[in-house]
Amino acid sequence: MSHSPFAENLRAPYYAVIFSSLRTPGDNDYAATAERMLALASAMPGFLGVESVRGADGFGITVSYWQDEASIAAWRKHAEHLPVQERGKREWYEHYELRIARVERTSSSPPSGK
Amino acid sequence: MSHSPFAENLRAPYYAVIFSSLRTPGDNDYAATAERMLALASAMPGFLGVESVRGADGFGITVSYWQDEASIAAWRKHAEHLPVQERGKREWYEHYELRIARVERTSSSPPSGK
Repeated sequence: MSHSPFAENLRAPYYAVIFSSLRTPGDNDYAATAERMLALASAMPGFLGVESVRGADGFGITVSYWQDEASIAAWRKHAEHLPVQERGKREWYEHYELRIARVERTSSSPPSGK
Repeated sequence: MSHSPFAENLRAPYYAVIFSSLRTPGDNDYAATAERMLALASAMPGFLGVESVRGADGFGITVSYWQDEASIAAWRKHAEHLPVQERGKREWYEHYELRIARVERTSSSPPSGK
């Protein structure tokens, strides 16, 4: 990818939504929908960034970062996001775990470690 | 894999260590060391579970779950873990971000959604 996969330089405290999921086989509009949801989420007030990875076995983790719980709640209730959440439960995920967590402390690798 | 990739049935509040990283090329003992660290961490008091995935591009997210901050601090100071952390900074990671977060609310996919 052309941009950093990291959400960097965020200042705690803030919130993380940790979404771990196992995909069902086949795409079934998943990729295009995920891209659309990312564009919508990124435009929401309080959105700080996202980190996401999925392995060849279909297991993936996406962590989105938000300023506060109200921002997360607003995104969860977004009119275009709601039916997508239902479709995810029904069609795209064998299983998922969703966690809302308050980021309290952070560190990162030294800037010139190499 | 033969076991579930999910850390399931944890009861909030608990803590998450969100470790996002970009690997350097080559293995350089990384895989064996990671396996050893997982075995050690799993035996620590307060360890609740772990979820981990790395993509073909070298970017990965590992989230480990712990009962409290004291458990996380004890693991960080573990005598065999300390030199491995230093080696990670020096050798295995182009970059990483580490976040300690308090998990406040959780949900998961319906048990019989399919």
